[in-house]
Amino acid sequence: MNNGLVFVISGPSGSGKGTVVEILRKIYSKVGVAVSATSRLPREGELEGVNYYYKTREQFEELIRNGDVLEYTEYNGNYYGTLKSEAERITAEGRDIILEIEVDGGSQIKKLLGEQCVTIMLIAPDADEQERRLRGRGTESEEVILGRLARAREEMMEAVKYDYVVVNETGKSEECAETIVSIMKAEHQTSRRMSKYINDYFD
Amino acid sequence: MNNGLVFVISGPSGSGKGTVVEILRKIYSKVGVAVSATSRLPREGELEGVNYYYKTREQFEELIRNGDVLEYTEYNGNYYGTLKSEAERITAEGRDIILEIEVDGGSQIKKLLGEQCVTIMLIAPDADEQERRLRGRGTESEEVILGRLARAREEMMEAVKYDYVVVNETGKSEECAETIVSIMKAEHQTSRRMSKYINDYFD
Repeated sequence: MNNGLVFVISGPSGSGKGTVVEILRKIYSKVGVAVSATSRLPREGELEGVNYYYKTREQFEELIRNGDVLEYTEYNGNYYGTLKSEAERITAEGRDIILEIEVDGGSQIKKLLGEQCVTIMLIAPDADEQERRLRGRGTESEEVILGRLARAREEMMEAVKYDYVVVNETGKSEECAETIVSIMKAEHQTSRRMSKYINDYFD
Repeated sequence: MNNGLVFVISGPSGSGKGTVVEILRKIYSKVGVAVSATSRLPREGELEGVNYYYKTREQFEELIRNGDVLEYTEYNGNYYGTLKSEAERITAEGRDIILEIEVDGGSQIKKLLGEQCVTIMLIAPDADEQERRLRGRGTESEEVILGRLARAREEMMEAVKYDYVVVNETGKSEECAETIVSIMKAEHQTSRRMSKYINDYFD
């Protein structure tokens, strides 16, 4: 059995990443569930390694410093994140992992995981459509929107650092998710990743 | 519009390549038809560039020497082959080309076409099954079969030189063809090949 892979999916605001990843998780079955780590205390009934891996704040920060946390966020004063060791545990079982990551975090994770990681950037069809989607949400002020547009422009510059770039055409989220599934399937068939299979062929 | 790609598909005897490529051509619609070149004379009603590109034997041999022929074979004293210029014409229109090539020819074509070319090796699930398939054809002598098996073993050593390796499980030719379609779709989404799209994004 070949190892699983870690697929990092990023997309600027307006790329429609949320919908696409939701569909993707439904149609791609080879995915394992990575249990997150947190620095918050366990609640009653919660189990280590089932609900979370529980770390102290100091432990969590040391893990971050050592490159043992693939991605994390701070919420309500607590850290939440994905441990490198958890990703390795799941991929060793032959299951893949999908991580939704901010655009600037993709290449960082790739550095931590090496060739076991494949990065995919979702984009809107063009800048006008991206702006339309950003504005379409409605409630934000012009200032917030202009800030997001500026950020989105910077984020597009990151696209070339990703392994793949997939366009999320308006109204075609399913197609987009299927294209990502194609990429996931294809990456398992590279001759480098098939080398164990080839070596065992005559056994 | 992005350029099309040339997909080279090879497989040792017993890999089941013929059936898989037949299915592949039915289910993958983005393929253009490459008109072959030949050194035989046009028959009545045949048209240059429609039935064949007609070359003299000397012209054909010079094209081969210059690296302008991707693959060729000699049959009944005449050359038949695929011109590099024809592949470039079709891919410039955004259509892909599928070439079925002997195992030792794949890396050669890749050298001629560079990154526009993607090589895929089909293999049987294992050596025993490959032998079963070879023997299953029935009519060949033991000597012929042993020769084929020896050749198949050598051909397997070429697999690592291919970009992708796909296993053709017995009775699952459709799945195998679909995996190849996934590879074909994925290759169009690499950030390098999407760079024109990214550059035009803000226009």
